[in-house]
Amino acid sequence: MVELLRAEADATIQELETMTTEAEIISRIRKRLGFNENVLLGVGDDAAVIKTASGRDLLACCDLLVEGVHFRREWTPPRLLGWKALAVNLSDVAAMGGVPKFAMVSIALPHWCSSEFIDELFDGMSELAQSCGVAIIGGDTSSSSDSLFIDVSVIGDCQSGKAITRRGANIGDRIYVSGSLGASAVGLSLLEGGFRLDDSRGVGDFRSKAVLKHLSPEPHLKLGRALGETGLATAMIDISDGLSTDLHHILDESGVGAVIHAGAIPIAECVRTIVSGRLEVDQLSLAINGGEEYELLFTARPENHERVMSLVKSNDVNVTVIGDIVAETKLLLERNGELESLQPLGYQHLI
Amino acid sequence: MVELLRAEADATIQELETMTTEAEIISRIRKRLGFNENVLLGVGDDAAVIKTASGRDLLACCDLLVEGVHFRREWTPPRLLGWKALAVNLSDVAAMGGVPKFAMVSIALPHWCSSEFIDELFDGMSELAQSCGVAIIGGDTSSSSDSLFIDVSVIGDCQSGKAITRRGANIGDRIYVSGSLGASAVGLSLLEGGFRLDDSRGVGDFRSKAVLKHLSPEPHLKLGRALGETGLATAMIDISDGLSTDLHHILDESGVGAVIHAGAIPIAECVRTIVSGRLEVDQLSLAINGGEEYELLFTARPENHERVMSLVKSNDVNVTVIGDIVAETKLLLERNGELESLQPLGYQHLI
Repeated sequence: MVELLRAEADATIQELETMTTEAEIISRIRKRLGFNENVLLGVGDDAAVIKTASGRDLLACCDLLVEGVHFRREWTPPRLLGWKALAVNLSDVAAMGGVPKFAMVSIALPHWCSSEFIDELFDGMSELAQSCGVAIIGGDTSSSSDSLFIDVSVIGDCQSGKAITRRGANIGDRIYVSGSLGASAVGLSLLEGGFRLDDSRGVGDFRSKAVLKHLSPEPHLKLGRALGETGLATAMIDISDGLSTDLHHILDESGVGAVIHAGAIPIAECVRTIVSGRLEVDQLSLAINGGEEYELLFTARPENHERVMSLVKSNDVNVTVIGDIVAETKLLLERNGELESLQPLGYQHLI
Repeated sequence: MVELLRAEADATIQELETMTTEAEIISRIRKRLGFNENVLLGVGDDAAVIKTASGRDLLACCDLLVEGVHFRREWTPPRLLGWKALAVNLSDVAAMGGVPKFAMVSIALPHWCSSEFIDELFDGMSELAQSCGVAIIGGDTSSSSDSLFIDVSVIGDCQSGKAITRRGANIGDRIYVSGSLGASAVGLSLLEGGFRLDDSRGVGDFRSKAVLKHLSPEPHLKLGRALGETGLATAMIDISDGLSTDLHHILDESGVGAVIHAGAIPIAECVRTIVSGRLEVDQLSLAINGGEEYELLFTARPENHERVMSLVKSNDVNVTVIGDIVAETKLLLERNGELESLQPLGYQHLI
């Protein structure tokens, strides 16, 4: 597993030197977009925020899943693929403190996609949509000469002025993360190593759990919405690129720094079990840098800690305090009393 | 040119026998989508219509352009590609009688896409967006192992209850089409035959005009909006698949039939010029079955004819009456006093 992760990291560094990163592309694109008085927040957060004539602001986002880049056909059941294509968007709306309402789906289908595959894919998407009151209202279909492409756009809303952006973290705020971390990265490694969902034996339950965290993440819609409506979160993001990278996004946008504590990071139980006894695997690094967790990472005023914990409890989610926002604009990791600088080593989008 | 069109038609018929059409896929997908009380109109029109708490309904649509399916790299300047990717969506909103407001862009970029290519693409999109007050508010980027994919979603709005669907055509209504037809199909044939935009000589002006109609269509935003706000159009669609196919969509959804007059079909001047003297080319067939025109096709009560024509005049667009809605659920073409059945021979989406 560690070899795979290392090989990926090496490839990433090599590619970074010669290729354009998504951040560079987005920066080039942003220069070309103009503006509009009703756009309260445009490109660059989990979702855009639009002022409307009613008492609610619109939220809009889209996420593209590309075969061979975001998923591999050989290990992704179509039902879970449909689920995930919608889930990653719902997670973006949750991370704004909003409520998702409508989705559109554009899909380019290669010839190997059978009718059964398409039915399963939309069944999975529909299952998630219906479970959270989201209506799929439109889309487009095309053929594709090779890879499968799925682009889902979601429209949601939130109370006017209550969207939680990445910009609001203040010095002294506590940093919280929902659920536990590392399972999605371990799930991906298991899939890369040949494990398949219907293959489970022995410690199979934990392995299946890790794989399911990767293939069919559960967006934290209730928690996100509650944090938005109560105004308790000062900044929020969902962990798609990895804690180290996504926390940097909050710090950069808010103009602050943070200290987080190694001992406080919630490592998923399946990660502890699967990699226990394998000294070469750094569980903490998996939890800090592993992407596609779709956990909520947010900040809140320390005086609101009790209210945050009671709100979390009423939403049946675990949340852990992992550190504090500080003035110095750096991200530091405290481990056994020593401070080290923590680089954004999560997923770097390359194009 | 005619050989190319025939070869395409033959391939289309062969493929139709073995492949799944977009209509079949959409029908399978529709069964899986559930519903929502705020969705006034879901999958199946030019855009979805959503009820909001304000006095306006939201319109939402998306259109996917895939290299090798919807465009070819070798003949599509990136600036025009960016323009078109947005234009086809704006045309959908115009066809609902609405006003486009916001756009999101998901793009999967193959390695051959240089920074200059991406800049040009977004410059073209941005030029159109800014010219009509549309803000690009978000998107997603990814790499692609081979083809370029661009999916644009647009959110617009219209006065509550005033969206013009495909369903409202009534017996006795007149049928109108904006602009003139056939140029986009001729432009595509010219490109397939090796003509390039910077190649123009001799009758070049007309050839460039036809090619530009194909590569950078102008959505009729003002006319669409005016027809929506005045309530003069009873049904409306934009011509993306070809008049014969798109008129069938209105007839099917409205449960009516139509008679249109061959002599009344507005054939584009560049079509008449380019194919004059080439007896083997049927100009009327190009105008009736050619796709990607992005002209507005609409119906209106005969007693409102004067109001339609005065509204059209104030919007600097030509509009032609091409026929009438009748009770018998067929589409008939009157040519030299003879009636013939007109099949939907426009573009059939295959996947």
